[in-house]
Formats: sequence, C-alpha cells, structure tokens
Amino acid sequence: MKGKTAQKNKSIYMDYAAATPVSSEVISAMKPFLSEQFGNPGSIHNLGILANKALEKGRKDIAMVLGAKTEEIIFTSGGTESDNLAILGAANFFKRISKGKKLHIITTKIEHHAVLKPIKFLEMNGFEVTYISVSKKGIVNVTDIKKAIKENTILISVMYANNETGSIQPIREIGNMIKEFREDRAYPLFHTDACQAPGALNLQVSNLRTDLMSFSGAKIYGPKGSGFLYIKKGTHIDPIIFGGEQEGGLRSGTQNVPEIAGMAKAFKMADEKRKDESARLLKLRDYFISSVKKAITKCELNGDEKLRLPNNANIYFQGISGEQLVIELDAKGVMISAGSACSSREDTPSHVLLSMYGSEERANSSVRFTFGRDTDKKKIDFVIKTLKDIIKRLRSQKKEV
Amino acid sequence: MKGKTAQKNKSIYMDYAAATPVSSEVISAMKPFLSEQFGNPGSIHNLGILANKALEKGRKDIAMVLGAKTEEIIFTSGGTESDNLAILGAANFFKRISKGKKLHIITTKIEHHAVLKPIKFLEMNGFEVTYISVSKKGIVNVTDIKKAIKENTILISVMYANNETGSIQPIREIGNMIKEFREDRAYPLFHTDACQAPGALNLQVSNLRTDLMSFSGAKIYGPKGSGFLYIKKGTHIDPIIFGGEQEGGLRSGTQNVPEIAGMAKAFKMADEKRKDESARLLKLRDYFISSVKKAITKCELNGDEKLRLPNNANIYFQGISGEQLVIELDAKGVMISAGSACSSREDTPSHVLLSMYGSEERANSSVRFTFGRDTDKKKIDFVIKTLKDIIKRLRSQKKEV
Repeated sequence: MKGKTAQKNKSIYMDYAAATPVSSEVISAMKPFLSEQFGNPGSIHNLGILANKALEKGRKDIAMVLGAKTEEIIFTSGGTESDNLAILGAANFFKRISKGKKLHIITTKIEHHAVLKPIKFLEMNGFEVTYISVSKKGIVNVTDIKKAIKENTILISVMYANNETGSIQPIREIGNMIKEFREDRAYPLFHTDACQAPGALNLQVSNLRTDLMSFSGAKIYGPKGSGFLYIKKGTHIDPIIFGGEQEGGLRSGTQNVPEIAGMAKAFKMADEKRKDESARLLKLRDYFISSVKKAITKCELNGDEKLRLPNNANIYFQGISGEQLVIELDAKGVMISAGSACSSREDTPSHVLLSMYGSEERANSSVRFTFGRDTDKKKIDFVIKTLKDIIKRLRSQKKEV
Repeated sequence: MKGKTAQKNKSIYMDYAAATPVSSEVISAMKPFLSEQFGNPGSIHNLGILANKALEKGRKDIAMVLGAKTEEIIFTSGGTESDNLAILGAANFFKRISKGKKLHIITTKIEHHAVLKPIKFLEMNGFEVTYISVSKKGIVNVTDIKKAIKENTILISVMYANNETGSIQPIREIGNMIKEFREDRAYPLFHTDACQAPGALNLQVSNLRTDLMSFSGAKIYGPKGSGFLYIKKGTHIDPIIFGGEQEGGLRSGTQNVPEIAGMAKAFKMADEKRKDESARLLKLRDYFISSVKKAITKCELNGDEKLRLPNNANIYFQGISGEQLVIELDAKGVMISAGSACSSREDTPSHVLLSMYGSEERANSSVRFTFGRDTDKKKIDFVIKTLKDIIKRLRSQKKEV
C-alpha cells in the first residue's frame, strides 16, 4: 500500500521523444569546459588549444559511432538547425550553380516541421516540391519516391523515424535506389532527419547511404542546443549562417565546446546501450500496448506494430480529446503528449496522423507515450490503471451530456 | 621569491574578449534545468510548464536590463546567429515586400565577420552595400553614415564596441540621426552588434535607439552557444531558420533552457557589477598602457585612448610579429591574442587595424590584451615584465640576422 501511495505522489515521465534529462555522465563530460578549460577553440594559446582538442575529440567520438570521417561532422545548435542547414544549404548550392533552372525537391507528408517549413520556404521562392504520401501504417513506399524523381530533382528528404508515431522509414532502400538512379551525377542528394534514431536504430552511414543526416543531442540524454549534421565527403552545400567560418566555413560562430563534449558522450552512451536498452524498451512497449488494448475499449495503435521505435506507443482513443487526456494524466503526475512538443502550443491536429488516416477526429483523439531509461513495468502498470480510470470517466461524462 | 615562482607557473589569462569562463553563479542557475526540470518548453504538461516558466523568467530578466519589453527578446544560439538573423532577416523581409527593387545596406569596415560576411553574401545576391571607413582612432563618423543614406537604404549596421580595439562607436548619435531621417517610414533599420558591450556600456534601448541589437552570453561569463537578438516592437524581419515556430516564429528549434537561464544570470550580474568593475578595469588598463609605453620602446596604442572598452589594450610593437608574440607569451603562461579569436586560425592581417592604419606591418605587429574579473595589478606587472623581456629578445635576434 505504501508503495502505491508513493507511486501516486511521484510523477511519471513518458515524453522522452519531446525531451530527455541530461545524464549525470554527460554533465560530468561538460563540466571541465565550463569554468576551467573555457577557451575559445579559435584561440592559438594554451586554453584555445585545449578547447580545440575537446572539440576534435567530440567530433572523432561521434564519427566513430557513425562509421564516418571526422571532417564529415559539422556541429550546429540542434536538430532544427541541422535540418535547415541540410535543406537550405543544398538548395542554395544548387540554385547558385544552376543559373535560374527550376529545381525540384521530394519529401514526405510526415516530416518534422524543421524539414517541412524550410522546404515550404523554398517552394514559396521558386522551387518545385513533391510531398509523398505514406501508408496507413505511416511508412513511405520506396517506389513512390522513385516515381517522383525527375531530371531536376536536387534533394530528397525522408526522416529515419517519425517523432510522433515512431514509424521507421526504409532509409537504406531509399538510399540504394537514389545511388542507382544517380550514377555518376552529384544529385539528387539524400537527406535524413535522424534525430529520433540514436540509441534505437543502426546509424552506420555505409549502411544507410545518405548524403546528409541531421542529429540532435537533446533527444539522447545530451544537452539541449546541441546537434550536428553529417555531410558525406564530396557533398556540396552552402552555409546558412556566415561569420568566422568555423566548422570548415559551413557553420560560423564559436563552437559550444561544453555541449559538444556532452553530446559526444551522450551519443557514445546511446550507442553502447542500444542493443540492451532497445530490447528492454521494446518488451515494455509491447506489454503496454497489449495491456491498454485489453483494459480499454475502442482504442487503436497508430502506425506500424513492428516498424516503429522501441520506445513509442501512439494510441487513438475514440471519442477522447487528446489534449484533455494529456491534461488529465498530468494532474495525476503522468506526463505524455498529444502530437509533438514542437507544435503542442498550436491548436492544429497532427499533420502526421492526418496524412496517415485522413481523419481529424483520429488525429485529435490520439496521444503519444514515449519511454526511456527510467521507465519500468511498475510505472507502466500505474499509467495503464490511471489511463483506464480517466478514459472511463471522460466517456461516461460524454454520455451524460 | 616563492611568490614569483608560483606566478611563473600559473597561467595568466588576458583574452577575455575571446572567451570568458562560466561563473559559478551561472553554473548554479543552469543546473536545475539540466537533469530535473529538463522538460521541453513546448510541452503542456508539468515539466513543460516549468521549462517554459524558466524561459520566460530569463526573457524578463534580460528585458529588464535593457529597459525593453519581454516580447522584444528573441533567443538564438549566440552572437553570430543574432547578427545573421538581424541582417539576413531584415534583408529578406524588405526584399520580399519590395518586388525586385534594388536595396541598399550601410555598414562599417571594422565590423565583426558575423556582420560583414552575411552582408557580403547579400552583396553577391544583388544588394548594394556601402562600407564606411573609420578614423585612425577606429571611430566611425556619424556624418559619413548620414551622407551614405539613400532612398533605398533598408539597413544600417554599426557595432557598439569593436572586438579587437575596443573602440566605442557613437551608437546613440547614429540612432538619433537615423530616426530623424526616417520620420514615419519603416526604414532604414538600425542594427548594432553589442556583443562586447554588456558589463561595460549603457544598454538602455531607449537611450541607444536601435531597432535590432545582437548579444552573446559567452563574452560575459555565461555559456557558449547562448545569445539573443533584441528586436524593437514594430520592427519586421523574416526568420532564417524554420520549423516549430518557437520564439514567435522568428527562431525555430527547442529553446536551450539551461543556457538561457545561465545567460540571463550572467547578463544581470554583468549589469550589477558594471560600474565598479568598469572603473576597476579602466584603472588597470590605463596603468597597463602607460607602463608598457614606459617599459618598451617603439610601441603605440591602437584605437582611441578614451573611447574604448575599459578592459581592452590593443598595442602595436614595431618590428614584432603579433603571432609570434602570442606564442612566446603563451610559453610563459600568458594568454593574449593577435586579432580576434574568430579569425586567428586564418593567416590574414586584421581587417580592423588595416582599415584604421592602412598598414599591413602595423596590423601584423599588434596584439590584444583584454582584462576580466580575475585580472589584478600583480598579474599585470608580471605580464609587463615578461612582455618587455620577450620583445627585447625578439628585437635583438632580429638585429643579429
């Protein structure tokens, strides 16, 4: 009984896809570069050299995890900037060398706003864009992309795993298809937003065959405001921020050395824990989904049952407002989200669920549970019970009206 | 004797304009938001609300120091991004609404690369740019700017204090002149890179009359990768990074809450300490400059004696390679810089000194000493002695050759 009360008073976080705590190991990795080795990595004196060494160590550690070259890693201020640099940078480069020719970009309808919005900006500025639909399971079809490629297609951007539904896209297959199509040409480039992938999916660049790949430190127990873009050697893009020409001229501004050291640590740890932690979370996730289905009527999993991130359960509860459910669960100490955090202060239904099911009602009645290192069976059981009670109450109130 | 040896073994940092350590108070302000209140400020549950509160508290604290409105503060990833957002954002906005009309920008020859390079980018893309010269003292003349203004001038960018020479520009006078010229028109906008100003100069926006003002947390004992842009209410600029539409749509990407909390603390502290610390540093600086002049022949201060930051001494040593001097001093544990850190890995002479004196020899034979909270008379005396010895040796070696 005592345990149960304690559980009730303690909050349960199930929104790891929105934000993760910075792990103690990451904080330790950052510390020396805050107040002792605080130099500007551009300085040529001792403190500058130490800062530059830390910077290059971080770059090497990250490159190792990807099987990439150190010079292929460009540090940015996060996932959003990485996506913008990849997309606007590639578009600006090809626009600059193509002398007024109309250029074409392919993406999917379920991308993160950090991909869709810069592409929308390019569309308003003369680019032609094809938005590929996904299946009801939230997966894009490689053939649909292949069919959309034209002579003037310079960029194809498809995310690795969706942030809302966790649906995993066939990146390797798309990569192979594009490389075959391309032969010895420099385009179309293939960009992947991989912000949700580390710690769950294979990140070997030789396997994925992407040219550009965006990452964030903030989703993997690293610091907010940290991120990087993988740029395959030989790939040309233009910078979007200009100045001191740090990061090989592709990202000006003094590098955030403490955060880079922290992100590298987070990235390495996510890789080391990947197999065990993925297996553990997958088991918990499947237990959660099947238990919810047993306990609650009229609910359905959004997205594919298998081809999804091991920590993601996005569920449709018929007749329930997702936003209200988030608020009611929060009152009981359980934190989840409706849609993605990046747009939860907006009042529009999820563009991801809309494009999968074409139903506003379903999009508005779905919520996302995402698990992490602190999630265990006890917490899941508590959440299922709480969820069941709330939905029962909400549905009975609705009948009364 | 013991003290002297200890002094020799301990390094002396005199490169505060390149980087500052993060103060212990700032680290304390950041900590709660790393591992406990780690939520995404876009989330609507409890941890999201706490993160959002911290974000808005940081915004309020910073706005207070400037005498600005909270909605006028837009968080970015640092000084470089703030400059780029101001310049490219303003240019893109006016380009969008001006339907192909040629647009004009005015700036000075001594701006930071984070200002000059985005302006150079615009120049390559059809904008007309006037680069105003400065006096031998490194100060821009208000009349020169006034004369350069044309009907199609949309933006004037002049830094508050130069990062290399510390020269303080007449921002208030330029601001007043522009407002008078403008009458009831929306342009030219007035942008100031104020990254070197906090803790030393008046930051009241009502006094300065700027429309856009860039700041960095990394120069004021705050975290690297933190910064903001002040955008006067009613000023229109376009975003340069697109996505989740955080920061009122002007800067997408999850806000870096720990760093914002830290930067706000650093900003408040710089303001509180401003009078006392400026007076202390000014005394040390003037003592340093006069002592160096007494101790060493053939040297000259670069820039104005009075109209300069209280912590900056940029000195020309005839016949000495600035870079070699930096390296020799570093070997003795004294860290300074030749030119700015942001370009010290390049091999070109300072564009700032070149435009002031028109002499490559002078630009290549100058170094910058910048003082900070840990600088005291004892350290300065040690540096003067070390400097004297090195220069004597270098000059005598030269004669031998």
